[in-house]
Amino acid sequence: LPDNAETIAVALRALAREGFFALPFGHMSARGAGQGSEAVLILRHLHSESFGIEDVTAADIIGIEADGSLPPGRDAPGERYIHTEIYARRPDANCVLHYHSTLTAAFGRAGRALVPQTPLGEVLKPVVPVHDFGGQVNSPARGAALAEALGQAAAITLPAHGAVVVGASVQEVAARALALEDCLAVELAAAQLGAQPVPAQPGTDAHTSAEVNDVLWHHLLRKHSVR
Amino acid sequence: LPDNAETIAVALRALAREGFFALPFGHMSARGAGQGSEAVLILRHLHSESFGIEDVTAADIIGIEADGSLPPGRDAPGERYIHTEIYARRPDANCVLHYHSTLTAAFGRAGRALVPQTPLGEVLKPVVPVHDFGGQVNSPARGAALAEALGQAAAITLPAHGAVVVGASVQEVAARALALEDCLAVELAAAQLGAQPVPAQPGTDAHTSAEVNDVLWHHLLRKHSVR
Amino acid sequence: LPDNAETIAVALRALAREGFFALPFGHMSARGAGQGSEAVLILRHLHSESFGIEDVTAADIIGIEADGSLPPGRDAPGERYIHTEIYARRPDANCVLHYHSTLTAAFGRAGRALVPQTPLGEVLKPVVPVHDFGGQVNSPARGAALAEALGQAAAITLPAHGAVVVGASVQEVAARALALEDCLAVELAAAQLGAQPVPAQPGTDAHTSAEVNDVLWHHLLRKHSVR
Amino acid sequence: LPDNAETIAVALRALAREGFFALPFGHMSARGAGQGSEAVLILRHLHSESFGIEDVTAADIIGIEADGSLPPGRDAPGERYIHTEIYARRPDANCVLHYHSTLTAAFGRAGRALVPQTPLGEVLKPVVPVHDFGGQVNSPARGAALAEALGQAAAITLPAHGAVVVGASVQEVAARALALEDCLAVELAAAQLGAQPVPAQPGTDAHTSAEVNDVLWHHLLRKHSVR
Repeated sequence: LPDNAETIAVALRALAREGFFALPFGHMSARGAGQGSEAVLILRHLHSESFGIEDVTAADIIGIEADGSLPPGRDAPGERYIHTEIYARRPDANCVLHYHSTLTAAFGRAGRALVPQTPLGEVLKPVVPVHDFGGQVNSPARGAALAEALGQAAAITLPAHGAVVVGASVQEVAARALALEDCLAVELAAAQLGAQPVPAQPGTDAHTSAEVNDVLWHHLLRKHSVR
Repeated sequence: LPDNAETIAVALRALAREGFFALPFGHMSARGAGQGSEAVLILRHLHSESFGIEDVTAADIIGIEADGSLPPGRDAPGERYIHTEIYARRPDANCVLHYHSTLTAAFGRAGRALVPQTPLGEVLKPVVPVHDFGGQVNSPARGAALAEALGQAAAITLPAHGAVVVGASVQEVAARALALEDCLAVELAAAQLGAQPVPAQPGTDAHTSAEVNDVLWHHLLRKHSVR
Repeated sequence: LPDNAETIAVALRALAREGFFALPFGHMSARGAGQGSEAVLILRHLHSESFGIEDVTAADIIGIEADGSLPPGRDAPGERYIHTEIYARRPDANCVLHYHSTLTAAFGRAGRALVPQTPLGEVLKPVVPVHDFGGQVNSPARGAALAEALGQAAAITLPAHGAVVVGASVQEVAARALALEDCLAVELAAAQLGAQPVPAQPGTDAHTSAEVNDVLWHHLLRKHSVR
Repeated sequence: LPDNAETIAVALRALAREGFFALPFGHMSARGAGQGSEAVLILRHLHSESFGIEDVTAADIIGIEADGSLPPGRDAPGERYIHTEIYARRPDANCVLHYHSTLTAAFGRAGRALVPQTPLGEVLKPVVPVHDFGGQVNSPARGAALAEALGQAAAITLPAHGAVVVGASVQEVAARALALEDCLAVELAAAQLGAQPVPAQPGTDAHTSAEVNDVLWHHLLRKHSVR
């Protein structure tokens, strides 16, 4: 457990420096190894304290219950049900990231699913769908609806809101988030040149997920001098 | 009074570092506690001195009269009537910001009102209208027309010019300005993907204004190391 | 003469740091006070030396003749005829800048004249036309054609190439170049929102040119710590 | 041989700092002077080591055979066939760069060939075509197809993937890559203003390739303090 908390904090610090939390909202979690307050490890609720996501440490990662219940004295984000409801439906998911960016919010707002085309987009195939609700996912029912819309996908966008990215590990989620931003930037510029959406396709023989995860994770930490 | 002047100066320094005054024009004011030259506190008129908005201090915040009259020896911006005419019509407004940015000028130029969709956009609901005049608001009559067009909204854009943002406090105005830029960026990218304008809607159960104001204000100061 | 050379060098260093010469091509000149090699002061031809426009000094500003002839041992840009032919036709012009930017090249490429709408755009009114030739202006005839297309305007764009900005002083030209980039950015974003071109209009009672020139010039130097 | 390896490393470090490898994928090669493992000099395969392309040295440039075979103990990128198949068909090509950028991927994704219009675009004339395959070029057959699609062009884009740039020297390839990004940015912004594609045209009397190569190469190294 402590190790995973440490890895979440490392990922959050690096993603913050990469610009994923330009305004200081968003959170990441990992599936915990135990029951009760060890079921889910998640960034605690950040109030207006004088530090930001770029400075979180393992001490800011707290344990909550699988149904989102808060142990006494703990305060997790209102949108923690994004995380708990996905873990309930996706046994392959061990990490969940929720963040806001101009690109993810815009694709959601436009109702345009992303069909990944780039080499790195292989890790997001076959499609990143758009949820039908862009408000706060702050109840079990809203979390469940989001998890259903996500299905077996690696990520989903929320209209005018942001994205949720899932993966087998913290590293995989961080890599998929980098790949998602990269894919969306290419697709937006291509749309400005008149490119039309294309049908989803199965994966090919491009870089393996393991290689992409590994290279992008180490790149992210090296670039921002985070360890 | 001195406290408010200090808060205005802090906000201006931080917003300048955030890029709100990329070219050195714009101003902020707060409703003063008194009469006459204590009616409105506003950034003095900056000429071509060798310092910019990122360096203003409380000493640069001067008092003017409620009708925009200047006490002897003081020089406020020609557009001070934006501030005075809003204070005359909006008892809830205790702070007014006028700034220029590519996004606010472009939405004004395109005649496109912003219907906030993002979670942070809650603090701008239901709509950010567009004024019908993009020139200098340098007379009481022009200020009055702008204030009428603003109505009860949190902000308004001016064609090819910029925006005016109002709020109950300096902190609220700074937070709303950050939320406005964020919303406009999402809406512009969505428009590039073909998203059409949608009708205005009432607020939902997203983040409360108090929370957004508090988090964004502390974020802004922390990010730019301004106190 | 030495003073003007110094001012040109200061402007070039500051504009370079502002990003006007992201790729190291472009030049600025001023009308000289004399005849022969004192007729026009211009940035010498930069080869591949190990310094760039951000480091030019007054020693890099050389004198050439009014018809573009080079005194022995001097080497000015092939496009010096932009400058000489404008000075021959515009007695009000004492400074000329030629630079390349994505925005100016794109508006030229699209054949879209800029009708300035922003408050700072007052200094570019009524219109920034587009030349019908985007190649190198490297002969007296090509310089003359450009000067004719410029007419009495403050600036002109060249298709897929860049812009030429003129003014009564080095400071005015620098200020107009900043205003031009600002106007073009607003107009491009507005176009992405569907704004249509509008007819040119005469100037209004916005900021005076003298004020804009003065504020923007000091801003530019202060921002980049150039003196 | 050692000299060319050093030059490749210098170019890669500088291009990395310029943003050509924002995500750490891409490679450059030069035609070697000999046979067997001295036939092609290429960046070795970078795994997830804790250093990136901005830090490569001549020791990271390895020799492989003309058909892409790897000498014992060496590991080159799976896409090395881009390089080998181009050298087999283009006796004028002594250097090949493969990189990914939003602009190159977007033009490829949109199926839009670049007809260079800018002055620097002279070095890319008459046209930068689009390949019909955007996947990994990780076999001799795929390399051959790409080389055939490239033909005699200076560069080619790959759909949603990136670009391949060739030239007579490392310096020429680096200069052409800078010119390519510059041209694409202008063309994208012009497209946003409604500019339509134009037919390819032969070169004109603009800057000579030798001058552009020389100026841009020295600019690139100076800007990033790379030697």
